[in-house]
Amino acid sequence: MQRERAQCSFNTRELTHFLDNGAENTAKLEKMMLQFERDPVFKIPLYDLSWKEQREMTFRRITRMVPFIASDTEEEFIKRFGLLGIFDGATYTRLGVHYGLFIQTVRSMGTSEQVQKWIVDKGGVNCHKFFGCFGMTELTHGSNVAGLQTIAEYDPDEDVFVINTPNLGATKWWIGGAAHSATHCVVYARLVVKGRDYGVKQFIVQLRDIDTFELLQGIAIGDIGKKMGRDGIDNGWIQFTDVAIPRDNMLCKYTQVDDEGNVSKPKFAEQMGYAALVKGRVSMVTDSYNTGKRFITIALRYAAMRRQFGKDNEGNEKKIIDYTHHRRRLFPLLASVFAMNSSSIEVEAFQSKVQEQVIEGNIAEAIPNLKDLFALSAGMKAFGTWETCKIIDEGRQSCGGHGYSAYNGFGQGYNDWVVQCTWEGDNNVLSLSCGRALIQNYLSMEKGEALGIYSAYLKNNENMELKSEDLNNTAVLIKAWETISRNLIKKATNSYAKFFSETKDQEASFEKVSSNRFQIAKIHTKLLTLKTFYQRIQSANESVKPVLSLLCNLYALHITSENIAEFYSFGVIRGSDFYEDLNYMIDQLNDRLRPDIVGITDAFNLSDFFLGSQIGKRDGNIYESYFSFVNGQTGKEMKPFYYDSTYKPFLHRELKKSDNDAAE
Amino acid sequence: MQRERAQCSFNTRELTHFLDNGAENTAKLEKMMLQFERDPVFKIPLYDLSWKEQREMTFRRITRMVPFIASDTEEEFIKRFGLLGIFDGATYTRLGVHYGLFIQTVRSMGTSEQVQKWIVDKGGVNCHKFFGCFGMTELTHGSNVAGLQTIAEYDPDEDVFVINTPNLGATKWWIGGAAHSATHCVVYARLVVKGRDYGVKQFIVQLRDIDTFELLQGIAIGDIGKKMGRDGIDNGWIQFTDVAIPRDNMLCKYTQVDDEGNVSKPKFAEQMGYAALVKGRVSMVTDSYNTGKRFITIALRYAAMRRQFGKDNEGNEKKIIDYTHHRRRLFPLLASVFAMNSSSIEVEAFQSKVQEQVIEGNIAEAIPNLKDLFALSAGMKAFGTWETCKIIDEGRQSCGGHGYSAYNGFGQGYNDWVVQCTWEGDNNVLSLSCGRALIQNYLSMEKGEALGIYSAYLKNNENMELKSEDLNNTAVLIKAWETISRNLIKKATNSYAKFFSETKDQEASFEKVSSNRFQIAKIHTKLLTLKTFYQRIQSANESVKPVLSLLCNLYALHITSENIAEFYSFGVIRGSDFYEDLNYMIDQLNDRLRPDIVGITDAFNLSDFFLGSQIGKRDGNIYESYFSFVNGQTGKEMKPFYYDSTYKPFLHRELKKSDNDAAE
Repeated sequence: MQRERAQCSFNTRELTHFLDNGAENTAKLEKMMLQFERDPVFKIPLYDLSWKEQREMTFRRITRMVPFIASDTEEEFIKRFGLLGIFDGATYTRLGVHYGLFIQTVRSMGTSEQVQKWIVDKGGVNCHKFFGCFGMTELTHGSNVAGLQTIAEYDPDEDVFVINTPNLGATKWWIGGAAHSATHCVVYARLVVKGRDYGVKQFIVQLRDIDTFELLQGIAIGDIGKKMGRDGIDNGWIQFTDVAIPRDNMLCKYTQVDDEGNVSKPKFAEQMGYAALVKGRVSMVTDSYNTGKRFITIALRYAAMRRQFGKDNEGNEKKIIDYTHHRRRLFPLLASVFAMNSSSIEVEAFQSKVQEQVIEGNIAEAIPNLKDLFALSAGMKAFGTWETCKIIDEGRQSCGGHGYSAYNGFGQGYNDWVVQCTWEGDNNVLSLSCGRALIQNYLSMEKGEALGIYSAYLKNNENMELKSEDLNNTAVLIKAWETISRNLIKKATNSYAKFFSETKDQEASFEKVSSNRFQIAKIHTKLLTLKTFYQRIQSANESVKPVLSLLCNLYALHITSENIAEFYSFGVIRGSDFYEDLNYMIDQLNDRLRPDIVGITDAFNLSDFFLGSQIGKRDGNIYESYFSFVNGQTGKEMKPFYYDSTYKPFLHRELKKSDNDAAE
Repeated sequence: MQRERAQCSFNTRELTHFLDNGAENTAKLEKMMLQFERDPVFKIPLYDLSWKEQREMTFRRITRMVPFIASDTEEEFIKRFGLLGIFDGATYTRLGVHYGLFIQTVRSMGTSEQVQKWIVDKGGVNCHKFFGCFGMTELTHGSNVAGLQTIAEYDPDEDVFVINTPNLGATKWWIGGAAHSATHCVVYARLVVKGRDYGVKQFIVQLRDIDTFELLQGIAIGDIGKKMGRDGIDNGWIQFTDVAIPRDNMLCKYTQVDDEGNVSKPKFAEQMGYAALVKGRVSMVTDSYNTGKRFITIALRYAAMRRQFGKDNEGNEKKIIDYTHHRRRLFPLLASVFAMNSSSIEVEAFQSKVQEQVIEGNIAEAIPNLKDLFALSAGMKAFGTWETCKIIDEGRQSCGGHGYSAYNGFGQGYNDWVVQCTWEGDNNVLSLSCGRALIQNYLSMEKGEALGIYSAYLKNNENMELKSEDLNNTAVLIKAWETISRNLIKKATNSYAKFFSETKDQEASFEKVSSNRFQIAKIHTKLLTLKTFYQRIQSANESVKPVLSLLCNLYALHITSENIAEFYSFGVIRGSDFYEDLNYMIDQLNDRLRPDIVGITDAFNLSDFFLGSQIGKRDGNIYESYFSFVNGQTGKEMKPFYYDSTYKPFLHRELKKSDNDAAE
């Protein structure tokens, strides 16, 4: 491994600063990482815990996280929290439900008095005699929030809302925190006043007595049980039967109900909420990067140490990283992790900017930017979380059998990760929405309306043809991608318009172009990911520009190779030689990156603790570490614990005559 | 669900017979399925068991499987065994190591006396005072079997082989059965006689005392511990230190060592072994079908019951199966399951045929067929197991959050399944070998040598162009696929030949064309899968031909859509309209298949027991079933078990001054 590091061509420290968006951030992150590594509660490996034991461990870890609320700035705490997400998805989410969902909902949907009451006075911010959960999804409703069935009916006589679960399907389901930890829940329910349904609003409902932890009257809660991953989260179900709550428990920054049952709704409420709504999605772009870098590091370090088959120059078996196909499997995914790093920084900044424009009431700029933000965050959440699935899965497969051991991290990592493709907007639903937004964008443009900065390329008209000699030129590749994306969006818009002119049915017409919508969402998102990465390199330190440029070129060729059909279909490329040239060019870039690979994984700056993988160890001493860890985990029993009860009676049973016949 | 079934256009029973390859097989399978369902040991759900509890349960299940050895024919037992694989991958493999690996190795590599001794006299066939394991892989060697390091050195003075593990890397690793169950192991070790290394051979080594179960002298064994899946298998590691075994414990059907240390090797040994070697791979094509049908059934039944968003004609929310994109995600995968069904039947029959030709010594026919068999089984194992990964993963995502619950089967299903991509030949290694074989095939053809039946299409010369109006014609699509596959193989062969003429280095030249090798393996395998499916329909009952033809057409369009870049690159298709036409044609086929979907899942003939999923229930009553199952699993505790130790002390702690500051 020392020889691997010695051949690195750049200063890894500079690259770390690039990834962390500044040396100051690197210093902060390193201090935080040390705090995790040194804390005995975080040191205990989770691999062998049963799902119930994991529940306890996540809570113990929560008690270690909460005190930092008082000492960190919000920005710092978000960073610390992100680090937790790298090695312990369950604790990350279990605490995230309280901090990210409960508290943020109160902040964005509550009045300042309500924020003071629930977050400060009642102890929300410190989890002091208070733990919040987020009661949105129901057994029969997930993606379609507007279709939720839980009822909050105003009773003017008592001046209360009465919460009810009208049927089994309306049972609140998947509610993280409900089974074991929550005292309160922000319940999404239909506001009904004087028999009129005002749609879904948010209501704070106390679930348990603070002192005895007994369920309050009318509240039924159960545990959802074992899941594919993140078993440390105590997901539960909740049913309400005539649960009365004070009128003031409805979060009423926007919609308000007075004591005579008059309902008032402000303008712009929806748009206001929009920018805040996407915050969760935006943070998942960062999660995609954080988790991606963990698993690509493990796979690449293993590849640099594992030897198999053919001989190298010194007569040893060749390192698997030195096989063309192995490089092809992993290096483009490494480039992809870098691309996600840039997009996560970009999209977080853009979200903040748009949210500010909304708060300032700068509607002229906010409206086109909101459209862009919606399409951008939906696409990047969907294709980023999917890309990380691929990184974990391909990484595992690239480690062969050892990738299948629990102690090398991939299995739990995958199981914990994949739910990111489903929650906060199912990836397919988001992609289709993104595609719809792009078509609407194109229609707006045709009407002469302003485009946001990420859609501005739709206005260009030049088409171009890509030649084999352009493959090294990322700027030209970006132009080609713009050509493709624009043509596809245009084609999709035309098809939509044609169906719509025939049917006058907007929904049916959008439904007809589902394939197109999915396709344009993918191409537009990959294009913006590439552009963002490319642009960010321009401001990088000179010493790391060459390696970043190689990675960016590789990323461009990788996504071109994956979507090359679109290039052929519009004649942007032609002939079977181009495809072969592209493949060889990827192989060549991989060869050029090869000496820097271990250095690049070092730049991600994750210690062995964060990697949580015996075969991904920094020192490359993988087999000793793996062997001794396995022995430490599995203990010293010499016979199976069911030897006397099951094994021996079977192996030593009397054979029947028929058994002996079978043996002949 | 009744209405779904009522709209089915064909006789589901006939389709079941088609899938089972005959009504007689269906009857047998149904009897076997009942036996599993009724047996209390198989009834216990595994979802919530810890990995150690799973170990015990698999052994209990093994004791229920073994007696069937005496009553089943071999063909029947293989069918029964395959059924076990659908719902319990761990027991399937744990017993499979003994029956499929240990016993088959003795049979194919041992003399008839050795078969009699180990399989009959010592109790192997009945697991009577005997349990075998398979000691091939080592910590540092998996794919490269020829590089194994364990030593078996002949000692002529004692007339024994002495087995040694020379270093940590040579530790036998992943050995299923070693940790808890095996009494004996067939050890792959380097035969060393008089200082000369004869390569890797097989040796039977007793591991434990039969009566006391204590490890024998010189044997060290440990448990590998937790894995991503299949935790019921007791994988272990083994180290040997001067373990002496009788000379007769070397399996010596081919290579023999006499008591003076003379080593004799017969001709054709390798080829003889070849056809038997691929048997494991071939069975994994069947596994891919079996597991694929389970998960596509769950996903489609859920899709036919789940409603979300827009309204249907009766004013209910629309079934998710009625969204264009949802159909697009799942129906092509259903078609793919059917294609795998046909290929599994085809490749099993072909393997038997070639093995017979080898045994009969029909070398003229056997040699080209062996080449075909190698490429076919490698490709179908690789792309079949990958396809099933995709089916499970896409199936889970298509069920949204409920797909993530352990009680709906996907998580464990995926974790158990994915190792199939790694063992019995890593899928990437196999794909590259398949690609290499195809290039060698093409070179042979150019030299005028005979081609096997699956490569015969390489001799054709006509290229063709595909038009939009051909999309409904599967026979024409097959011709187009042959054109593409032939052109790609030709191009890859030319590139290889060019590199080779420059370097005269075969390995380096094959390495250079790695991308091509992977690509041609994929295209050739998909083409054969399509052809096999298409041809098999010709002999189907008339009543099911229409639905099968639709599925086959859909499969052809699905794989064309996934690999359309290759079609463009050779000018077999042109223009962006074709791509859109293809997409709409897939949507149209999906629409035509829609009324038959639930009927098709019924034809797979898997009961709720085999599906193991609350949301995949046959009666469509998914929510009630799911809700009551969850409550049954998670029990009745009203407070977390760590309430007093961890929860309450934290929530009711005294706040410090600094905490209160934070709240402001």
